[in-house]
Amino acid sequence: MSKLGFIGLGVMGGPMAGHLSRGGHDVTVYNRTASKMDAWLNEYEGSSACTPRLASTGAEFVFSCVGNDDDLRAVTLGPDGAFVGMAPGSVYVDHSTTSDIVARHLAELGLRQGIEFLDAPVSGGQSGAEKGVLTVMCGGREQAFERVRPVIDAYTRACMLMGPPGTGQLTKMVNQICVAGLLQGLAEGLNFGLTAGLDMEKVVAVISKGAAQSWQMDNRAASMIVGEFNFGFAVDWMRKDLGIVLDTARHNGAQLPVTAVIDQFYGQLQRQGANHFDTSSLIALLSPRASTGSPDSH
Amino acid sequence: MSKLGFIGLGVMGGPMAGHLSRGGHDVTVYNRTASKMDAWLNEYEGSSACTPRLASTGAEFVFSCVGNDDDLRAVTLGPDGAFVGMAPGSVYVDHSTTSDIVARHLAELGLRQGIEFLDAPVSGGQSGAEKGVLTVMCGGREQAFERVRPVIDAYTRACMLMGPPGTGQLTKMVNQICVAGLLQGLAEGLNFGLTAGLDMEKVVAVISKGAAQSWQMDNRAASMIVGEFNFGFAVDWMRKDLGIVLDTARHNGAQLPVTAVIDQFYGQLQRQGANHFDTSSLIALLSPRASTGSPDSH
Repeated sequence: MSKLGFIGLGVMGGPMAGHLSRGGHDVTVYNRTASKMDAWLNEYEGSSACTPRLASTGAEFVFSCVGNDDDLRAVTLGPDGAFVGMAPGSVYVDHSTTSDIVARHLAELGLRQGIEFLDAPVSGGQSGAEKGVLTVMCGGREQAFERVRPVIDAYTRACMLMGPPGTGQLTKMVNQICVAGLLQGLAEGLNFGLTAGLDMEKVVAVISKGAAQSWQMDNRAASMIVGEFNFGFAVDWMRKDLGIVLDTARHNGAQLPVTAVIDQFYGQLQRQGANHFDTSSLIALLSPRASTGSPDSH
Repeated sequence: MSKLGFIGLGVMGGPMAGHLSRGGHDVTVYNRTASKMDAWLNEYEGSSACTPRLASTGAEFVFSCVGNDDDLRAVTLGPDGAFVGMAPGSVYVDHSTTSDIVARHLAELGLRQGIEFLDAPVSGGQSGAEKGVLTVMCGGREQAFERVRPVIDAYTRACMLMGPPGTGQLTKMVNQICVAGLLQGLAEGLNFGLTAGLDMEKVVAVISKGAAQSWQMDNRAASMIVGEFNFGFAVDWMRKDLGIVLDTARHNGAQLPVTAVIDQFYGQLQRQGANHFDTSSLIALLSPRASTGSPDSH
């Protein structure tokens, strides 16, 4: 069993750190809002620290699951950052969804002081984190990946090394692009069917047997039809992810004509106060009927 | 075993009529281009007729699988149309993808002379037709549906009555809307990953385990990555289907902001001579690498 640091106890990080604690590891947690540490310590064994540096001191592996590039820099760099507390030979695993630029930058900085950095964004959402069945897309060096793999097994169902630093984040971006397009197609399809007065339960039953099938159709069509958007991964987070995606594409030259439009739709949902709706709420922009679920109902 | 008429021996209708013949039915075929009837008769038992009317005379069930609304009207109405040959109590099953308007119109006309009309578009593509595993979405009256069900079992895996006349076509439209959005998302995602230099085989392996999974990802990502678009269901056909979809939405008021854009993309592929590429060729508009497969290679 190892000494671990875990930074960021949100709806994802909280249960992930919990799985590590229940797996018998010695976990020290840090969270910007201190009350979340108390709540976590009420549920799991472990200890807390006042800074990322203190949470990381003496740890063999340090994990983070925070908001964006700036949040990640804030918890790793500077005098109270994790990198100051970490010893050579230790491994930093970042589960946040960030740009590949910050991931490569931190991998480089880490290398100079003998710290391995892995960008390791996840998919599977809040329920995947709680059930410990996340999918992890890793960028970094193979040796570090092999060392951390048995540890994060506590909350992963699938875990793959994609390539050098940054490739974990880039893979997550591919994932979000695919999800955005398919959710919009699903939203337009379901709304069209509702407008035409079809029995949508039957429609989904029959078309999910063929070429229109998707995980989103299997898991979200029923709630989209009745206008319920309480599945955790929120519009605000998707908007952040798509911002990174579009920014990255602006630099590498990849065309994203429809993803760019869907990003605008998520922006429209934000302006309507649907920030906490889940990502399938794109249908609420199309259908008055599907927009009856209020943002407060989540 | 029944006496059947089958109108339209294209890549879908040919094998479907073949399954009926092999199922022991007495099948009379009609096709506008006569040479296709000869080819069909070389492969299957049955007979041919010079007009839809003659192919339908004395048949208990008449099937069609033709191009568009006009084609369907041409084979059903007028002095040489199937409706003239059919007797009261017989059932007409149209497997074409058409508007719901023509379906309701023919159901009404049929009713006046005691002919049951079912709109019964299929999904599953050419390979589904060949293997006899199509999905059929039916609109029409339950009694007629139940009568025809055991017959079309010869080439269906799933078959559902969606509601009154026209609802089969409307369900197919929902299907095509969903497919369009998810194919464009998949195209943008894969192209982004290729541009970023990712190992796309690994990327698909990991993201297909989660929220981005789709039938299209499972069955088309690999060929899209290498720029092969030889899977049968062609850009020209998708363009026709989306034309019906957008026309229907113009009347019922359903918003299709992204579907409308994707229809334009398919139009762009047509102008580039990619008419016979399969529908996953949307990626060819994004990626020079993926557009290396020529239209002639299909």
